[in-house]
Amino acid sequence: MALNLQYEAIGKGFVQQYYAMFDDPAQRPSLANMYNIESSFMTFEGVQLQGSVKIMEKLTSLSFQKINRIITAVDSQPMFDGGVLINVLGRLQSDEDPPHAFSQTFVLKPLGNSFFVQHDIFRLGIHNTA
Amino acid sequence: MALNLQYEAIGKGFVQQYYAMFDDPAQRPSLANMYNIESSFMTFEGVQLQGSVKIMEKLTSLSFQKINRIITAVDSQPMFDGGVLINVLGRLQSDEDPPHAFSQTFVLKPLGNSFFVQHDIFRLGIHNTA
Repeated sequence: MALNLQYEAIGKGFVQQYYAMFDDPAQRPSLANMYNIESSFMTFEGVQLQGSVKIMEKLTSLSFQKINRIITAVDSQPMFDGGVLINVLGRLQSDEDPPHAFSQTFVLKPLGNSFFVQHDIFRLGIHNTA
Repeated sequence: MALNLQYEAIGKGFVQQYYAMFDDPAQRPSLANMYNIESSFMTFEGVQLQGSVKIMEKLTSLSFQKINRIITAVDSQPMFDGGVLINVLGRLQSDEDPPHAFSQTFVLKPLGNSFFVQHDIFRLGIHNTA
């Protein structure tokens, strides 16, 4: 499959849509539609999860209600199977916690006229101060 | 091609090898061997580069000599073409600059008995303070 030259718009559009759903507790369960029942991998703060059921168990178990999120950078690249690699750098603040930097990597895989999230790696930017 | 179940060891080994070469100005030019002449993409602080020649022009143009690098986390996932997705979070300090957080995403693509870097996204963790 050819490179999708719309990768930049796809990356930015996906990130906007994904976080709009994620950051709204009422919409968060609908993220299930973005993952495949078997062939989606997520690594959340080092915890490895496979398949939309386990991924959604994790995402809907997060207890915070209010999220302030600021996107610093979205970098996207076209992949050789028609997919899109996306790296997001930003900051988020949940409830009364102090703000934290985060990075999140997505691999979108083409499916029909759309995409699903085949790979998802999330990390808060918390560094040892040693 | 099947998932490579050694993804964890491959990711950690690659990251160690890559930064050992990157952080040594004498070895940095040898990174050319890790990229494909045509089908490697790099996004370096938002600048998009394709192919090992352009990528190496960029990497060897970086003027710092001394790098202190601390790796905070390496998260890897197996990909469905036998490749490995790697996300690195860390901090680096070059010459007399203050230390900066960084994130770097690699997609390793299988080639014979080894891998090359098909995708590479690098960002320093510099956030607007607004």
